[in-house]
Amino acid sequence: MSDRFEITHKDVFGRIGKLDTPHGRIETPALLPVVNPNEALVAPAEMRQFGATALITNAYIIYRNPRLKEAALAGGIHELLGFNGPIMTDSGSFQLATYGKIEISSEEIVVFQRDIGSDIGTPIDIPTPPDVPYERAQRELNVTLERIREATTCCGAEMLLAAPVQGSTHLDLRKQHAQLLSKLNADVYPIGAVVPLMESYRYADLSNVIMACKAGLALNKPVHLFGAGHPMMFALAVALGCDLFDSAAYALYARGGRYLTATGTHHLSDLAYLPCSCPICAAGDPELTERELGEHNLWVSFAELNTIKQAIVAGQLWELVERRCGYPALLQALRTIQKNCALFEPIEPLKSSFMYTGAESAARPDIARFLNKLKNLELAGRVLITTDRKKTRDMEHEFDATLLMKAPFGPYPQELAETYPIGQSEVPDPDYASIKSALKNLIALIRSKNVEATFAYDSMWNHDDLNELSSYATLLPL
Amino acid sequence: MSDRFEITHKDVFGRIGKLDTPHGRIETPALLPVVNPNEALVAPAEMRQFGATALITNAYIIYRNPRLKEAALAGGIHELLGFNGPIMTDSGSFQLATYGKIEISSEEIVVFQRDIGSDIGTPIDIPTPPDVPYERAQRELNVTLERIREATTCCGAEMLLAAPVQGSTHLDLRKQHAQLLSKLNADVYPIGAVVPLMESYRYADLSNVIMACKAGLALNKPVHLFGAGHPMMFALAVALGCDLFDSAAYALYARGGRYLTATGTHHLSDLAYLPCSCPICAAGDPELTERELGEHNLWVSFAELNTIKQAIVAGQLWELVERRCGYPALLQALRTIQKNCALFEPIEPLKSSFMYTGAESAARPDIARFLNKLKNLELAGRVLITTDRKKTRDMEHEFDATLLMKAPFGPYPQELAETYPIGQSEVPDPDYASIKSALKNLIALIRSKNVEATFAYDSMWNHDDLNELSSYATLLPL
Repeated sequence: MSDRFEITHKDVFGRIGKLDTPHGRIETPALLPVVNPNEALVAPAEMRQFGATALITNAYIIYRNPRLKEAALAGGIHELLGFNGPIMTDSGSFQLATYGKIEISSEEIVVFQRDIGSDIGTPIDIPTPPDVPYERAQRELNVTLERIREATTCCGAEMLLAAPVQGSTHLDLRKQHAQLLSKLNADVYPIGAVVPLMESYRYADLSNVIMACKAGLALNKPVHLFGAGHPMMFALAVALGCDLFDSAAYALYARGGRYLTATGTHHLSDLAYLPCSCPICAAGDPELTERELGEHNLWVSFAELNTIKQAIVAGQLWELVERRCGYPALLQALRTIQKNCALFEPIEPLKSSFMYTGAESAARPDIARFLNKLKNLELAGRVLITTDRKKTRDMEHEFDATLLMKAPFGPYPQELAETYPIGQSEVPDPDYASIKSALKNLIALIRSKNVEATFAYDSMWNHDDLNELSSYATLLPL
Repeated sequence: MSDRFEITHKDVFGRIGKLDTPHGRIETPALLPVVNPNEALVAPAEMRQFGATALITNAYIIYRNPRLKEAALAGGIHELLGFNGPIMTDSGSFQLATYGKIEISSEEIVVFQRDIGSDIGTPIDIPTPPDVPYERAQRELNVTLERIREATTCCGAEMLLAAPVQGSTHLDLRKQHAQLLSKLNADVYPIGAVVPLMESYRYADLSNVIMACKAGLALNKPVHLFGAGHPMMFALAVALGCDLFDSAAYALYARGGRYLTATGTHHLSDLAYLPCSCPICAAGDPELTERELGEHNLWVSFAELNTIKQAIVAGQLWELVERRCGYPALLQALRTIQKNCALFEPIEPLKSSFMYTGAESAARPDIARFLNKLKNLELAGRVLITTDRKKTRDMEHEFDATLLMKAPFGPYPQELAETYPIGQSEVPDPDYASIKSALKNLIALIRSKNVEATFAYDSMWNHDDLNELSSYATLLPL
C-alpha cells in the first residue's frame, strides 16, 4: 500500500502530492467537500465545477437509514451519491463524540465501508476532546489504537485505510500515538478531534497538535486535518504538513449566513460589497441565497487551495502563511510554530537544491531572498548565534532566541533548517567568500533588529570581517 | 460645481463617494478602464460586467484620426464607443511626455472634449517626470497652472474639469500647486506624472507625492491617481485619499503575458495553478488567451475595489493596507506614511463616533481593537509619549518617535489622530477608569516593544497607576 502517495513538490513542511484510490487520483493538498447523503446543499455531481476531485460522506448515516443502506450495498456508494471520483467515508466517530454512543461496532462499520466500495474508510476512533486528563486521553487512545489494528485486518485490499491520530492536547501522547500508527502502515493519517480547537480559535494549540502528530508520523503518508474546512487556516495547516481537508464549513456557514474569505469570515448582512471575484460574487448583487452563499464558500475555498499549491511550486508558502496570519489567533499560531519547531525533527528533505560552486554562488538571488526571509523574523532581546549547537546547548537558556549559522547564507532559525535553501544546500568546506557572505547577512540582520547579539563561533569562522561584526555583537570563540 | 461629489463613508484617509456626471454617477473609489478607441481588447460595452461604471479614453487619439474625429463630433463620444455611462477623456499629455510634442493646443483639445460630450475633460498639463531640477518643475508647473485656468473658461457648463497636480518629486511644489488649483474649484484633481514612480516600484516616493498633493487639495474633491491600474497598490492609494484610478494595466499586462493579483504580478508561464476564483480562472485551465488574461486582470482589479470599499465600510482599511503591503516596496511605502503623516494636516473628520458614557466604555471592544492596532506599530529606540504636544514640541527631536495620549484609549501616533476611534471619540473630562485604561494600554504597548519610553504628562494624568508605569518608562511631569 505504500506507493499510493507520491510527493511531487515541497515547501516549508507543505507538499503537493498524488494519492491513488480505486476511483482515481487525488491531488493534494485537497479539500473534500462533506456531502450529507440525506440533504446536500450542492449535489455531489455538481462539486467538480468548483475544483473538487473527491468527496467525503458519513458511512454511519447511510448505515442507519435502511433505504440508503440497502441502496449503498446494492449499487455502491458511488452510484448512491452520483459521483464517480474518490469518495472517503467517515465512521460515526463524530456522532460518538456528539451523542456519547452509537449503535455499531468499529469492525462492522469498517466492513460496511469496504462493502459499499468506499475509497478511503475509517474505523470508529475515540475523538478525545482537548484538555482532558492525561489518563483519560491515554486510555481512549489505546482503544482507538486497537480498533485501527483491527481495521487493518478487515478493510480489504482495495479500500485505503484512514488511521486517526488522537491524544487530546497532550503533545507527547499525540506523538507516541502517531509513531505507533505509523508502524501499521495505513494509507491516510487523519489528525482527529481538533474541531473544538478550531471552533474556539485556538490555532496555536492546533498548530502544536499538528506538529506533535507530524513528528511521529511517517513523512511519506498523507495527513488529513479532520473537520478543517475554513480556508483562512489552510495555508497554515498545509505549511505544517497537512494534505487533506474536509469541508462541511461551506454549507454550515452558508446556513448561518456567513461568507468565507481566505482571511476571515463575514456575516453576509454586514457586507455592503462582496470582496471576491468568484462567479457568484462577480454577478454583483450582494443579496445571496443560502445556496449561492454555499457556492461562494466553495469557490473561495478551492481558490485558496490553488493559491497554496502555486505558492508551494514557487517556494513562497511561508510568505503566504504570513500574509494569511493577519488574524490575531492565527498570528499567535505562527509565533508558536516559530518557537516550538524542535518537535518537527526529523524532517523530510525538500524540493530543490542549492549547489555552491564558488565565490559567485554567494551572490545568488536565492541568498538575497533568504536574507529577506530573515528580515521577517520576530527577534528581540538577547539572541545567540551559534556555529555549533552542540557546544552551546548549555547556554541557550540564557537567551531569548537561538539562531544557527551556515555559509554562505548566514543566520537562520531552527525552523528553516530543513527548508530551502539551508536544508538543500550542497556547500563544500566554506570558503572566504561564503563566510564573508554569511557574516554580512548576520550583520544586516542584527542591524535591522533591536537585539543584543552574541556570536559563538568555531575556529573555521575566523575571518577578517569578525572585526566588523564585533561592533554589533559580542564575540564568543568556542 | 461643488456639489458634484458627495462623500458617504470614510476610513483612514480613504472614502466612498459619489461623483455625478452628465452620463450618470460614479461610485468611488472607482477604476476607469482605459479604452483604446482604435483597438479595444475588451469592448467598452462589455466593461460593465466586470463592475466598471465609467471609462476613460484618449481625446487626442480621437482628434488625430479623421474618421474617429468626425464620428465623435457628429454623434458624440458615447455613441462612438458604444458606452452610455460616464466617459472621462485624457488630453494628450501622455503623448506629450512620450514624444516631446503634440500638434494641438490645450484650449483646442479642451473645447474638442467639450464638443464630443466628454463627461470629464482634461487640459494638456505638462507631466514633469520625477527627480528633475526644482526650477524646471516650477517652470512647467506654471504652464500647467495657466492651461488649467484657461480650461476653466472654455470647458463649458456640462463637462467636469480635471485639473492635474504636477510638481515632480518636489513635495513643496506638489502641495503649493495643489493649493493654487483648489482655488480654481475644478471637479476632479488628478495627481499627474506618477507612472515613472510606479514603474520603478518607488511606492514610498509615490506615497509622499500623494500626501503632499492631498495636503494642498480641498478634501471635498475627488482625487484621481493618473495611470495607476495595478490592484496591488489600490488599497494603499485609497488609504492615502485617492478616489479614481484608470487602468490600461489590465490590457498592457495581458499583452505581456502577466497575471495580476491583489498582492503582485505573475508571469502566466510561471503559474502551475491559478490563484483566483474569477469566472476565467474558475474554469480551471491555466492556459489563458491574451483576451482571457485581460478579463482576469479586470475581474481581480474590480474585486479588489470591492474589498477596499467593504473595508472602508467596516472601518478596516488600515488592516487591509497592512495585508497588502507584504510586497517589500509597498512595505517601505507604509513605513514612509507612518513617518511623514504630518503633511496630512488638516485632515477631514471621519465616519462613526465613540461616545464615552462612563467606566464601562473603557472596556469596549473598540478599545481592544485600538490596542491591537497599536501592536502593529513599528516602534523602536527612544519613544516619547506626551499628553500635551505643545509643551513637548522642543524635545521631540531627541526621540526616534513621538506618540500622543488620549483617554480611554492610550498612546497613538499622529497618523491615527483623525481616525476612528481617536478622532471621533466624545470623551468628557477623563475619569479614573478612562485614565487607568489609557495607562494600561500604554504599559502593554511598551512591554510589547523593545523601546526606551519617556512619558511626559500633565497634572490631569496623575493616577495611582503611574507607579506601575514607572517600571517601564521614565516619568516626566510637565
